[in-house]
Amino acid sequence: MEDYLQNLSHKRFNILTNEWVLVSPHRTKRPWQGQEEELPKAERPTHDLNCYLCAGNTRANGEVNPNYEDVFIFKNDFAALTKNTEDFKLDQGLLMAETESGICKVVCFSPDHSKSLAQMSIKEIEKVIYAWQQEYKNLGKEEGINYVQIFENKGEVMGCSNPHPHGQIWSQSSLPNEVVKKDKSQYSYFSKEKNSLLGDYLKQELKQKERIIFENRAFVVLVPFWAIWPYEAMIIPKMHQTDIYQIPISETILFAEAISVITRVYDKLFNCSFPYSSGIHQAPTNESSNKHWHWHMSFYPPLLRSATVKKFMVGYEMFGSPQRDITAEFAANVLRDIANKLF
Amino acid sequence: MEDYLQNLSHKRFNILTNEWVLVSPHRTKRPWQGQEEELPKAERPTHDLNCYLCAGNTRANGEVNPNYEDVFIFKNDFAALTKNTEDFKLDQGLLMAETESGICKVVCFSPDHSKSLAQMSIKEIEKVIYAWQQEYKNLGKEEGINYVQIFENKGEVMGCSNPHPHGQIWSQSSLPNEVVKKDKSQYSYFSKEKNSLLGDYLKQELKQKERIIFENRAFVVLVPFWAIWPYEAMIIPKMHQTDIYQIPISETILFAEAISVITRVYDKLFNCSFPYSSGIHQAPTNESSNKHWHWHMSFYPPLLRSATVKKFMVGYEMFGSPQRDITAEFAANVLRDIANKLF
Ligand SMILES: O=P(O)(O)O[C@H]1O[C@H](CO)[C@@H](O)[C@H](O)[C@H]1O
Ligand SMILES: O=P(O)(O)O[C@H]1O[C@H](CO)[C@@H](O)[C@H](O)[C@H]1O
Repeated sequence: MEDYLQNLSHKRFNILTNEWVLVSPHRTKRPWQGQEEELPKAERPTHDLNCYLCAGNTRANGEVNPNYEDVFIFKNDFAALTKNTEDFKLDQGLLMAETESGICKVVCFSPDHSKSLAQMSIKEIEKVIYAWQQEYKNLGKEEGINYVQIFENKGEVMGCSNPHPHGQIWSQSSLPNEVVKKDKSQYSYFSKEKNSLLGDYLKQELKQKERIIFENRAFVVLVPFWAIWPYEAMIIPKMHQTDIYQIPISETILFAEAISVITRVYDKLFNCSFPYSSGIHQAPTNESSNKHWHWHMSFYPPLLRSATVKKFMVGYEMFGSPQRDITAEFAANVLRDIANKLF
Repeated sequence: MEDYLQNLSHKRFNILTNEWVLVSPHRTKRPWQGQEEELPKAERPTHDLNCYLCAGNTRANGEVNPNYEDVFIFKNDFAALTKNTEDFKLDQGLLMAETESGICKVVCFSPDHSKSLAQMSIKEIEKVIYAWQQEYKNLGKEEGINYVQIFENKGEVMGCSNPHPHGQIWSQSSLPNEVVKKDKSQYSYFSKEKNSLLGDYLKQELKQKERIIFENRAFVVLVPFWAIWPYEAMIIPKMHQTDIYQIPISETILFAEAISVITRVYDKLFNCSFPYSSGIHQAPTNESSNKHWHWHMSFYPPLLRSATVKKFMVGYEMFGSPQRDITAEFAANVLRDIANKLF
């Protein structure tokens, strides 16, 4: 990549959101006297009597979890989105509001309280993927649901209140902001080029090889050119698939491998159980034409310098644009080196 | 405000960014077992020998701070934006990047290390405002600068690495993402209505009174209808002014009062030195026509339940839309009650 991109302050364009990120490669020399995170408590037991996600335990609403063996899914007891009984629309001049109804679920990845995706076998991760596929399909069929957001908050720094390996699914009637942006950009590219935006992007990345962390026959793991978080990464299917339900049955195991690789690489980066939020962006469930969508999974990890020093997205980032200190190429190099040693 | 807005999940529209926020009023019942912040160390001395912002101390680059008496401004020693010596533009298909050059400054609000804006007198705050006005004017005249972002990160939770009362100014050649959004919405409203968007919004708010925290002759402090952060607030001038340089000389003291009130109210809310990021959005400095801009100052504080429990903008918020648990009306009620007791 051009030298100046590694040395001078510049902005990069995110083709999916049509927004810019500010890159300040020289800024890493800055000393840090600010907040340091606490390291997560070392070892966890495989079963914790006080964990409301462990098998056989009782949840806040009195329900008892079954003795599940792999993946266990239930409706969130404190859901941010619920099925509203009445529809409403407020349109008072400059004050505008609308009902939003939805269904929120919790997805336990494993009964083993001590694990995270990085410690699960590829076969075990594949079961999580099967569950996501089913949920995408089934929630999409529910009345009034048009978008299914699958995500995971891992680690206390990411606001995760329970260390048991789990993710969430929030499904709802309208498209969330981030999805609207990606819907627009992919639609306008596809209409013009008759190719998927991410498919064409992938071709460029696979030629340059500078931001690739790992690839197998069906998936690429890379640091996107426009990454915001220091060690942000993205899993993209090589084939043009609109949603995870379209992954051929022979390839879910390869998606599981990609997840396994990136989460293990992360844990090795600073030698800790690496915190992040991850999420899958994919086609809405109700639209008749979704051909422009190319699903992908992103990881947004906050750590910047070590297991305890994170990047704060505050002040300038909230009022201006996201800003990063290390370049995407630098991050990809570091992560690729670790990935190569896994095998 | 309509009852259903206080009870049912809904989304509200932000007229400035044209984005939605998800509101889940029923969700506050959720128990919290997640991360708690450390309380900031109690009392600070009025002068700290180890603080690189205190008067007379030496900074990282060897420079010695003057014995300043009110506001002291210097160029950031580790600036995210610098004046680039060469201009470049990368346009490789789907990889797009451009130079971004700028000037970053640090603004010490007071030589007194122990204070924050909430403990400063209104006259002292007015001096900070004078400094902001000068910087906005002067930086705007520098070659290649078109936008001046004034902001403050307060508190360790907000990534602030030094408790000395200070803010920052990042000025740059192009408009940051958030500013672009607000530029568009204000422009399109102003072209159609011949009034400022925020001016008309303010009229509605002053009639309903439900989200007003405080007002004086020239300024209103309110929780915007579309607030994202639990106790977010906004200071809006009643007169249509495009930037802070347009505040009449007789009214800077009233702006100072507004800042004093909201920061004191915040400190009383959970009985702590309340963390936040604040920022001023105002007209770009180079555009010939900025008449559609109506400047405003926003406060984004992360605390939700107490001095140690914050709202995490993670997972769903990163991949979907921002989500809040308490309504803007509830927050405004609480803050207004505290404000009323100040007098
Ligand atoms: O410049 P500071 O205070 O060292 O750094 C802080 O504010 C900056 C601007 O909002 C952010 O980019 C940093 O992540 C944050 O830690
Ligand atoms: O649902 P949880 O894990 O209790 O809560 C966490 O994830 C949610 C979805 O990203 C966020 O809205 C909360 O702020 C966060 O603490």
